[in-house]
Amino acid sequence: MYRGLVEKLVRKNDSRILLAVIDGLGDISIKELGGRTPLEAALTPEMDRLAAGGVLGMHIPVARGITPGSGPAHLGIFGYDPVTYQVGRGVLAALGVGFKLKHGDLAARINFCTVNDSGMVTDRRAGRISTEKCVELVGMLTDIRIEGIETFVIPVKQHRACVVFRGEDLSDDIQDTDPGLTGQRPVQVTGSSESRRIVREFQEKAGEILKDRKPANFILLRGFALHREFPSIEERFGLTAAVVALYPMYRGVAGLVGMNIMKCLTEDISGQEKAVKKALDNGHDFVFLHHKPADSAGEDGNVQAKIRAIEEFDRALPSFLDFGFDVVCITGDHSTPCAMKLHSWHSVPVLIHGGPQRWGCSTAFSEKQALSGALGSFMSTDIVPLLLASAGKLAKFGA
Amino acid sequence: MYRGLVEKLVRKNDSRILLAVIDGLGDISIKELGGRTPLEAALTPEMDRLAAGGVLGMHIPVARGITPGSGPAHLGIFGYDPVTYQVGRGVLAALGVGFKLKHGDLAARINFCTVNDSGMVTDRRAGRISTEKCVELVGMLTDIRIEGIETFVIPVKQHRACVVFRGEDLSDDIQDTDPGLTGQRPVQVTGSSESRRIVREFQEKAGEILKDRKPANFILLRGFALHREFPSIEERFGLTAAVVALYPMYRGVAGLVGMNIMKCLTEDISGQEKAVKKALDNGHDFVFLHHKPADSAGEDGNVQAKIRAIEEFDRALPSFLDFGFDVVCITGDHSTPCAMKLHSWHSVPVLIHGGPQRWGCSTAFSEKQALSGALGSFMSTDIVPLLLASAGKLAKFGA
Repeated sequence: MYRGLVEKLVRKNDSRILLAVIDGLGDISIKELGGRTPLEAALTPEMDRLAAGGVLGMHIPVARGITPGSGPAHLGIFGYDPVTYQVGRGVLAALGVGFKLKHGDLAARINFCTVNDSGMVTDRRAGRISTEKCVELVGMLTDIRIEGIETFVIPVKQHRACVVFRGEDLSDDIQDTDPGLTGQRPVQVTGSSESRRIVREFQEKAGEILKDRKPANFILLRGFALHREFPSIEERFGLTAAVVALYPMYRGVAGLVGMNIMKCLTEDISGQEKAVKKALDNGHDFVFLHHKPADSAGEDGNVQAKIRAIEEFDRALPSFLDFGFDVVCITGDHSTPCAMKLHSWHSVPVLIHGGPQRWGCSTAFSEKQALSGALGSFMSTDIVPLLLASAGKLAKFGA
Repeated sequence: MYRGLVEKLVRKNDSRILLAVIDGLGDISIKELGGRTPLEAALTPEMDRLAAGGVLGMHIPVARGITPGSGPAHLGIFGYDPVTYQVGRGVLAALGVGFKLKHGDLAARINFCTVNDSGMVTDRRAGRISTEKCVELVGMLTDIRIEGIETFVIPVKQHRACVVFRGEDLSDDIQDTDPGLTGQRPVQVTGSSESRRIVREFQEKAGEILKDRKPANFILLRGFALHREFPSIEERFGLTAAVVALYPMYRGVAGLVGMNIMKCLTEDISGQEKAVKKALDNGHDFVFLHHKPADSAGEDGNVQAKIRAIEEFDRALPSFLDFGFDVVCITGDHSTPCAMKLHSWHSVPVLIHGGPQRWGCSTAFSEKQALSGALGSFMSTDIVPLLLASAGKLAKFGA
């Protein structure tokens, strides 16, 4: 995609776009399914109907062979080149727990760990303490005061937490204090920069507070990252966008590009339905709907659960469509093949329905049909331009 | 495409290439045709024969989702990246009426308009005066003399004309004088640059000449653009190229990349046949043949007329092929779906016949077969490299 070309051609209209992401949707051929994928084995009459009346294609999340994390994968399908718009791990961790970062915040991941009497790390995960214990310890660390800045510590899960430093002119030029191995001391934060001084002081004070709390008697810090505000999806593509997601991480990534975060009153699809309705009532013309269970099933290697997750989404689809979208896109952020139990680099099926299309090339939504679909294969960053075009939101280039 | 790579590998030989462009060829599924496109519904035995013995693919004119104007669309299929090689609207207008621009010429579009006694624009198109009236008024404006430069005024159609200023060191950093709305004054050209002074003087003198010629008693100027010569298709690709087109716009765009413009003695396909023959007799090894009617039919939303236009081209094809081309490419510059009555962003079918090919993948020339054709989907700028390769005009890269 040419940088800045699409932005120059954007024109607003009233058309409404639904971008539904079935997390980890893509998969690879599974022997027990006779070579089919979960999407191909699932009964998905609603998506098949949209496929027949719309168009299919395959998106490549970052580049051929590159496996994306959730952050880059979603940024790509929001039209943000994930290599240009990088999000550090500390920032993603903070977004993942719903912390509202401000421009210039310095974030890092915390691992509670065990050190012995001579200061060597003996367990980098402090025996994977319970999340309850994590919350308790974090409560103690929130008392740490460092002059000139604000400090926030937020529990994540088990031995994992994160820290955010808010102050002026902070820098993320700080290496991990996690040595990556046991039997070594935590890496010293050296240097005299303000940010390094702050991190050093935070780690020392945390050590003081935790020193008698074995197994979690120290902390390791990783993934220092400064939060930078991105140009918003409204500025770039003229879209007034909302996110409807049950997990904080996806709300966070959508928030990075300026989507408005809709509250779901219940933590299920029916809560998401009401939130989508409200987003439209509030005048949004772009709704990003996130559906998590297929990815979790893929990470667990549970083929049947992934099939059920996809079928559950398909059954829910008509109630979302009934709200009246002009253009609907259903895709995944990346593939999570059950056989790998991991994200992967494989291309991801895309379905677009609505607007003028070369329909009639496909009969069902599946990886194999998407491979020969009317849209061909393209980069994930091309999805938003295709949706804008389908919705009549792009002017002609040149005369 | 890697910039400059193809150019370095070019080697000349006697092979002759025909690039036939059926303007606006691509289309989308049409309900009344049972989901087929005009190309799929048309009887095209000649192109189908070439498809079976050659290869098909889909080209993307500029980028996914981007709808090109005729200028960028043609530059792409001539191998010129349409974002790198941008052509301003004023330049295209001048090319469109067959004006021979020189490097450094400053061109702009003219709208005859109506202003009231207090100088407010009351009609930006002067009631769409007749083309005859336009010619008459342009005749009066050609008398304008501005010191140090040459001025050319050329009628276009109805209220539209264009102006070309020829002088030294002109600049196109001049905003439109068209306010875009009625009830406002024409925008003043301010600033002291030579070019702005010239434009100001031209507009004042035009106003003086037209002041009693209601409804067309003033002019608005738009799309100031400097004409820059591009590296020629001979320099870049070693092709001695000729254009055979019935419309000035396409001759103009081909002229931009240094194609020789062949005269058509009659304004029909038989005139084009003779011109192609002559181009070959004169030693050209690349002929760009342009066929307009399918695009016009698409712009009119006339499905049957588009089918007829494609069939007409197919019937004429053997006489062109009889002249003896080694490689033949048939494609469109962009899609003009009848349902949209506009250019669109949809990919465009490409047929290449001749040279060593992976033939036998297709049985007919159609959008659906092109989607799964041997060439896959690719950018329009890849067409010329594929034709050069097919014609044996590209050396190996590296040892």
